[in-house]
Parts: sequence; structure tokens; C-alpha cells
Amino acid sequence: MAQQHLDPTDPTAGAVTGDALAGYLRAQATEFLRALRLHRETGGQAAGAEEPVDAARALRRSARRISASLHTFRPLLDPDWSEAMRPELAWVSGTLGLEHAYEARLERLLLALHRLSGAVVLPAPAVDVPVAAGSRAAGAARAGTAAVGGTGGPAGATVTPERGNLTVGAAKAGALLERQLTLARTRAHSTALQALGSSRFHAVADRVAVLASEVPLTPAAPTTALHPLAAAAEERLTDAVTALPLVTAGHPYNAEALVHGLSPDPVPHPQDSPWHQVRLLLRLHRYAREVLHAGDAPLDARLLTAGKALNRHRDASEAAAAAAQAARTPRITPATAYALGVLHADQRHEVEAARFAFQQAWQKQTVPAP
Amino acid sequence: MAQQHLDPTDPTAGAVTGDALAGYLRAQATEFLRALRLHRETGGQAAGAEEPVDAARALRRSARRISASLHTFRPLLDPDWSEAMRPELAWVSGTLGLEHAYEARLERLLLALHRLSGAVVLPAPAVDVPVAAGSRAAGAARAGTAAVGGTGGPAGATVTPERGNLTVGAAKAGALLERQLTLARTRAHSTALQALGSSRFHAVADRVAVLASEVPLTPAAPTTALHPLAAAAEERLTDAVTALPLVTAGHPYNAEALVHGLSPDPVPHPQDSPWHQVRLLLRLHRYAREVLHAGDAPLDARLLTAGKALNRHRDASEAAAAAAQAARTPRITPATAYALGVLHADQRHEVEAARFAFQQAWQKQTVPAP
Repeated sequence: MAQQHLDPTDPTAGAVTGDALAGYLRAQATEFLRALRLHRETGGQAAGAEEPVDAARALRRSARRISASLHTFRPLLDPDWSEAMRPELAWVSGTLGLEHAYEARLERLLLALHRLSGAVVLPAPAVDVPVAAGSRAAGAARAGTAAVGGTGGPAGATVTPERGNLTVGAAKAGALLERQLTLARTRAHSTALQALGSSRFHAVADRVAVLASEVPLTPAAPTTALHPLAAAAEERLTDAVTALPLVTAGHPYNAEALVHGLSPDPVPHPQDSPWHQVRLLLRLHRYAREVLHAGDAPLDARLLTAGKALNRHRDASEAAAAAAQAARTPRITPATAYALGVLHADQRHEVEAARFAFQQAWQKQTVPAP
Repeated sequence: MAQQHLDPTDPTAGAVTGDALAGYLRAQATEFLRALRLHRETGGQAAGAEEPVDAARALRRSARRISASLHTFRPLLDPDWSEAMRPELAWVSGTLGLEHAYEARLERLLLALHRLSGAVVLPAPAVDVPVAAGSRAAGAARAGTAAVGGTGGPAGATVTPERGNLTVGAAKAGALLERQLTLARTRAHSTALQALGSSRFHAVADRVAVLASEVPLTPAAPTTALHPLAAAAEERLTDAVTALPLVTAGHPYNAEALVHGLSPDPVPHPQDSPWHQVRLLLRLHRYAREVLHAGDAPLDARLLTAGKALNRHRDASEAAAAAAQAARTPRITPATAYALGVLHADQRHEVEAARFAFQQAWQKQTVPAP
């Protein structure tokens, strides 16, 4: 399995050593610094809305890749440095990613509410995120969108559901979710801004600046082949996939994802964890492939589709949890609670659908790289 | 398509004429009278719980078949008699079927609530239907079970969910549904008892008694082939199936069934109607096959599976509507409403799953009859 993906027939595969890892880490570190510079030049201001988004994304993107490479190729790197670096990078990408996650979650839930109401949803500019009228938190979040980069994507790619054509229960549920998730997003925004200005972040940036020129490889690393460590990462992935309930997932409408839909212990669903874990292992495998191919790994459609299914699984799982959480708000009306119940079940079925999609993608034979 | 099922290569197929229809109708009328006699001997009393169930079912079973044959082979029968008879038979099977329908709906919803709560459901005798403690309506329904025949099936075949291990919202939702559906069932039971004692029913029984010995065929009917009329019934079925959104239904997790889950216009879902219609046409086709084969039609696994999927579709559709209806009860708690919302969505996904099952069954090639 692992052999297939890493293509042992490629005569150059065996020749990829720690030198390539150093090159990859330097490139990612440079990318991190470039994104940071871009962010500092444009960040905190409402003008030039596109760039801070890209900058924040690029920051997270390179932080994730450096961190993943430190993990997969750990034996080739100075262990003290490596162990000190990884949690800091995880903190950076986690902190910067939260605002966007809340925004995407709200958008997903509002879109679902509209779909469930049989309402027409019109495409609209991404910046026009729906906010509760007069809500200070929402206003702050909107103003802050341009600072850390919370918008969902390029203009026109996202849709803006309007609450006007929702039924009473769905409209109230939408307003409640908007209030709660906008507040969470605003807090995440503040936290991200604070983090970017903290001495902790400056220390990370300094370390990354050093990494851009000097990678702390072990003495043997430059001539050590990367292939076995990359293969081990893939094996961890395939092992974890094997442990998933793929037979069940491959039977449509197995009703498995909603089994604990009304259980007293609400969130997170324990049955989701192995899938979340596979999502992370898939990412590690994907980045290891990048290292082996010097950042230019051939596109693997199967990995791509499987990864997208797992992202959708994660998003739907968290959206379902948010709906269940909102239903616990004191003094909501029964109509609101009913709509949130329908919404929760809908998202849990999205979870099930994502598992089916993953199973379908995974069972396909690997397409040979061009 | 129609040709395949009716098997024109069968040399006896062309020879089946109105005489066979008369034989089938006489046999069904005799069956109706036998069931009625059995019901009168045992009905209204709590003792011998099994027989009234069977008797009520057999009554409905033969009433449906007589009515269907009158419809499909209308040109071969005295039109005045036929047109007077059909609505009366529909009234009999409809009135007698309602009590069982409410009971089955409640059982389906309680089972779903347990599944959604992650609770274990133990099999138990069918007679032990859960009733709200101290509820007079429930008590009346329970006492009446043996009279018209409202139990779900043979002892041990059904399961008895207990509300003890449900969460607060799910338990309250279960109690609410139990109250409402038990009341509806009690009313249906009373209506059925009244119907069976009415002069209207006696008139139907008298007509069926005449039918058992004397079928009012047209003069030409005894030598007229049944095949073209049976083929027309099958064509109506295949036409209706062709009009169904089967491409969508064949894509698992298309999320179509819940599209109006929160729409202001609640029940019934208009999108379900064509499927309900196909269910009825499939039944007409099945009974027409019985007439052609003198009640001994070879088993068609495809028809059987497709029919079961459509029954499941109807049951889930009605259960979803009952959950939505219950959520409109004044003064329920938000937790109850939330559980009903999850339940509604769950049953709408059952609707979607049933459509998928039908699509899968239907697309299979017809298995030649042995």
C-alpha cells in the first residue's frame, strides 16, 4: 500500500535524503515569514480586505507543514529544538484558524437552515456576512474581518443566506446561532490579534527566521533516506483507516451517525474521533509526500477526495454540536428548539454522508501518478 | 416492460379470461365472509387475542383485492354494481386499518427515539404496548386491542421500548407521542367497532355474500382475455415509476427528503405523493398478477422488495408528520421540541433511505419466475 504511493520504481525516490527535508523546511519557513510580513503590512486595517485573509491562511499553511515535517521526520532533526518548536507552531495555526472556523460553521448552519426551509439562497459577496442587526459583537467581528482574515473565501464564492424568508422557528434558530457563533468568532478574533502581538509569537517568528537559513539536522541526516519515515507515516494512516467502520460507512443510510443524537452526553460524539484522527494522519501523509517530491508532489485525486470528505466530516460534526449546544440556551421557544433539533439531525446525516464519501474514495484503486 | 412480467411466452397466458376473474372474485368474497364470521365469533372479547387480529387483517386483505380487481378489470364487470361496490370496500379496509396504522406509527417513533438515545431495546410480547400510566385512553385502547385487532403482529415479533432509559427530552417526546397516538388509536378503534355494527357494513357484507356465488360479469367477459387489462395496469405502474426522481433517489445522501423539513406548510410533504401513488399502483399490479395466475402468482422478488420499500416510505413519511404535529402541541418544553425535531429529521431520512431502497430494487433486472 505504502509502496504504491511512494513509487519505489522511481529511481530518484531512494535518493531523497535529509537534504531534501532541509530544503523543504527552509522553503516553508521563508513562506511563513513572507506571509507574516504581508500580514503586518496590511493587518489590523479594513482596507485591502483580500490580502490579510491570504496572509493568515498562508501563515497557518506553512506552520502546519513545518510542524508535520518535524513530526514525521523527527529522527533526522535535533530533538530538543524539534520538541520545543512543534507545540508553538500548533498554537499559532490553532489560534489563527479559530476565527475562520466559527465563521465557516455559522455559514454552514445558516445554509442548512435555508435548505431545510425550502428557501432560495442567492450567491452574494463573501464580505457581506449576515449579522444580527444592532449587535455590537457582530459589528466588531465584521470590522475585524479584514484584520486577521476571517472571510470564507474569494468574493462570490460564498453565499449569503438572508433570514427574511425563513419560517419562525428556523429564523429564531438562525438568529440564535448567529449571535452565539458571532460572539465566539469575535473572541477568537481578539485572541488571534493578541497572540500575533505577544512575545510568545515573536519568539516563534524568530525561530522560524533562523530555520529559513539553518535547519538543525542531525549529523547523519543529510545522507539518510527519507523514504522509510514517509512510509511509516503512510502506514500509520492505512492502519487507522483499517480500524474505521468502513463496511458500515459503505452502506448508505446506515443511520449510524445519529445513534447518539439524543443521548444525554452531548458533544463531541465519541464515534467521530477515529475519523478526525484519520483526517490528521492523511494530512501528515500528504505533507510527507510533498517533502519527498520537493514540494511538487504529483496530484493524487484519491487522497484529495478522501481528505475533502474528512474535512466535511469534521465541519458537519462541529456544526451539529453547535446546534445541539444552542438548543441548551435557556428560555428559547419550543419552535426554536425544534428547528435546532432538525438542524442537528441534518448535520449528523452530513457526517454520515461524509463517511460514505470517504469510503467510496478510499476503496478506489490508486491512480498511478502521471 | 409489461410484456416481460406477464410472460407472453406462457401458452396459457392468452387463455386467461373473465372466467378466471369470476373465480378469483368468488374466492376473495368467500375469504371475506370467512374472516367476518371468525371476527364475529371472537371479536369484542379480550379472550383469544390472536384470532381477531388475523380476522381483521383477512377482512382488509380480501376487501383490498376485490376492490383492486373491480378497478383493473372494470370493462368486464357490470358498471353500476362495480361503481357502487368500490367506495364501500375502500371504506371497510380504510376504517379497519386505521387502528393498526396508529399503533405501528407509535411503535416506529418510540423505537426511533430509543435508537437516537443510544438505548438498548429489548424484544417483548407484542400485546405489552407501552401506555401512559393511568391514561384512560391508553387503557381503553389496550382493552380494545383484542376486539378489532390492533396489535402489531405475532407475539415476540415486535419490540417494546421502555421509556425509563431515555433522556429527559426524548422521554417527554415519547410520552407526548404516546398520548396523542394512543388517543387517535382509541378513536380509530371505536370508529371501527361502530362501522362493523352499522347498517352500511351489513349492506357491504350482503353484497359480498352475493359475490361469493354470483359475479356480475358482462355478457362478453367469460371469453374476453384478461391480459390486456392487466398489462394496462402494469403500464400505469411503470409510467408512474418513470416519472419519479429516481436519478436523485439513486444518489445516497441527496438530502432531498428533508428539503422542506422546516417549511411553514407542514404535512403532508407534497414530494411524497408520487411515491405513495406508485405504492398503490404497484399493489394493483400485484393483485392483477394474482388474478391471472388464479391466486397462485409466482413470487417476484423485485416487486416484493420494491413494495416493501414503498411501505417503509409511507410509514416513515407519516411518522415524520406525526412528530412534526406533536411539536405543535402548546406548552411543551424546548427539550421536548428539540427531541421531536431530531425525530422528525430522522424519519425524513428514513423516507430518503426508502426511496434509495426502491431505486435499487427497481433497477434490478426482473428475475425470471421459476
